[in-house]
Amino acid sequence: MKLVVVGSVGLDDIETPSGSVERALGGSATYFSLASAFFTNPGFVGIVGSDFPQDGIELLASHGVDLRGLERVDGPTFRWSGRYHADINERDTLLTELGVFEGFQPKLPADYRKAPVLFLGNIHPSLQSDVLDQADGKPFVALDTMNFWIEGTPDELAAVLPRIDALLINDSEARMLAGTANTITAARRIAAMGPSLVVIKRGEFGAFAYRNDSFFFVPAFPLENVVDPTGAGDCFAGGMIGYLAKAGNTDWATVKNAMVAGSVVASFSVEGFSVERLRTVTREDIDARWSEFRKLTHFDADL
Amino acid sequence: MKLVVVGSVGLDDIETPSGSVERALGGSATYFSLASAFFTNPGFVGIVGSDFPQDGIELLASHGVDLRGLERVDGPTFRWSGRYHADINERDTLLTELGVFEGFQPKLPADYRKAPVLFLGNIHPSLQSDVLDQADGKPFVALDTMNFWIEGTPDELAAVLPRIDALLINDSEARMLAGTANTITAARRIAAMGPSLVVIKRGEFGAFAYRNDSFFFVPAFPLENVVDPTGAGDCFAGGMIGYLAKAGNTDWATVKNAMVAGSVVASFSVEGFSVERLRTVTREDIDARWSEFRKLTHFDADL
Repeated sequence: MKLVVVGSVGLDDIETPSGSVERALGGSATYFSLASAFFTNPGFVGIVGSDFPQDGIELLASHGVDLRGLERVDGPTFRWSGRYHADINERDTLLTELGVFEGFQPKLPADYRKAPVLFLGNIHPSLQSDVLDQADGKPFVALDTMNFWIEGTPDELAAVLPRIDALLINDSEARMLAGTANTITAARRIAAMGPSLVVIKRGEFGAFAYRNDSFFFVPAFPLENVVDPTGAGDCFAGGMIGYLAKAGNTDWATVKNAMVAGSVVASFSVEGFSVERLRTVTREDIDARWSEFRKLTHFDADL
Repeated sequence: MKLVVVGSVGLDDIETPSGSVERALGGSATYFSLASAFFTNPGFVGIVGSDFPQDGIELLASHGVDLRGLERVDGPTFRWSGRYHADINERDTLLTELGVFEGFQPKLPADYRKAPVLFLGNIHPSLQSDVLDQADGKPFVALDTMNFWIEGTPDELAAVLPRIDALLINDSEARMLAGTANTITAARRIAAMGPSLVVIKRGEFGAFAYRNDSFFFVPAFPLENVVDPTGAGDCFAGGMIGYLAKAGNTDWATVKNAMVAGSVVASFSVEGFSVERLRTVTREDIDARWSEFRKLTHFDADL
């Protein structure tokens, strides 16, 4: 097993200008694992309640996600509900009910502990540290976090950052964490907090990576029909970290390719509600959009 | 003469977190012409009042800008004043006094009429049409506009768009013009209004070009010390259109390079107040940052 992901699993009610869905598969680990599964079979650590649908389990399993780390306990599964605006880059959260996720104490099964790449999704930073304590060897560790933890548990977050290799974070949250309005400065400051690789996610504007004074920018694939942006950032992370895990190295050239992989997978995810579009994407679809990305960003001539 | 620019010349009071300047050289044609002058010597059509400083004239002339199209009349020069926020991507306009610019009736000197490339800066769309009536032959015409004309003179704007080859426009204004929240859809719809090439400027997120179902994205150069963003969009346009004018063609590969040229020149402009940084940038500076752009955006491997 080359990759393990730890994070949330949920059931989402989502309303966008294109329509709505109820109790649809969601959560950061769900999106991440399906996205990474295009490149390698991830081990999955999460928790669901007794109301979690069997077809959710089957979907993950059918995509090669290893579910020995998925706990099923009595009680309700994590619920989230959101409504997107006419400008689909804006949304309101209508509901967050933690359910059994509130008592989540992630445990790495024995087979997962030697995985060379570990992704710690957006959960309490103390739980992220707990997971790191369970890992054997020196995995490459990537982590996501959000404003809730930056504001609410800054000390716990500061304690985990020196233990990781890569932080993937939204631009507004990067600025908040670094205490600056300049996103470039934010990336440098965050790198000084621990993670040598900092990936700033910018929604419709794509993402950029920073390490050792180098930057790499990738656009979002140009799409006219964005049905549901939920989980796009998690799919970006899944595509990127899945690519790195499969490649077996994290040098800068590989990181650049991994950023493209992340943007490609995320571009499919937003074309359907929940994880629907990810069910049907083929390797050929991914190859085709990968080729397009070259045309979107490469230029030929010298000055 | 390969390029003519028509637009505003002004004196700006600017306040940013880095400091402030008063009566500094500004206006879309000023920034555009200095930026384009790195690639070709542009002809300049604008109007200033009797208070316009001689050193402004000398600066433009010393950079190879042809000023035979610059009118000097009695009265005050166009004034603009703005204050930028701690987040320098946000600003408030404090003052706009048109002065002699209110009576601007642009006239192309005889030598300018055969220029193969024409840039119509952000002025009343009827004046833009008047300038086109004065041009000989079939120049490549690029045009800028803004929310003021989109909302205030939609019919006049609709009349000029079928006569141009390229529209350069901010993303929020593109969405307004096209009546959609999706910037990609906006680019396609605007192309259907006339200009086959649509360039959407996205501030700190760079820019993208659209033509014939193809897209090309260029990031903004990563900068920590943004002193004054005033004129960055005009410098992008000047670098881009100046590059095209020098190249003597507008095929898609050349457009891509021109987008990079625009982003490079704009990245220098914001490093100083007003046009101060553009005074000292060398061709070697531009070459160096051009090489960096490759590293920022190119990736090597296939999937």
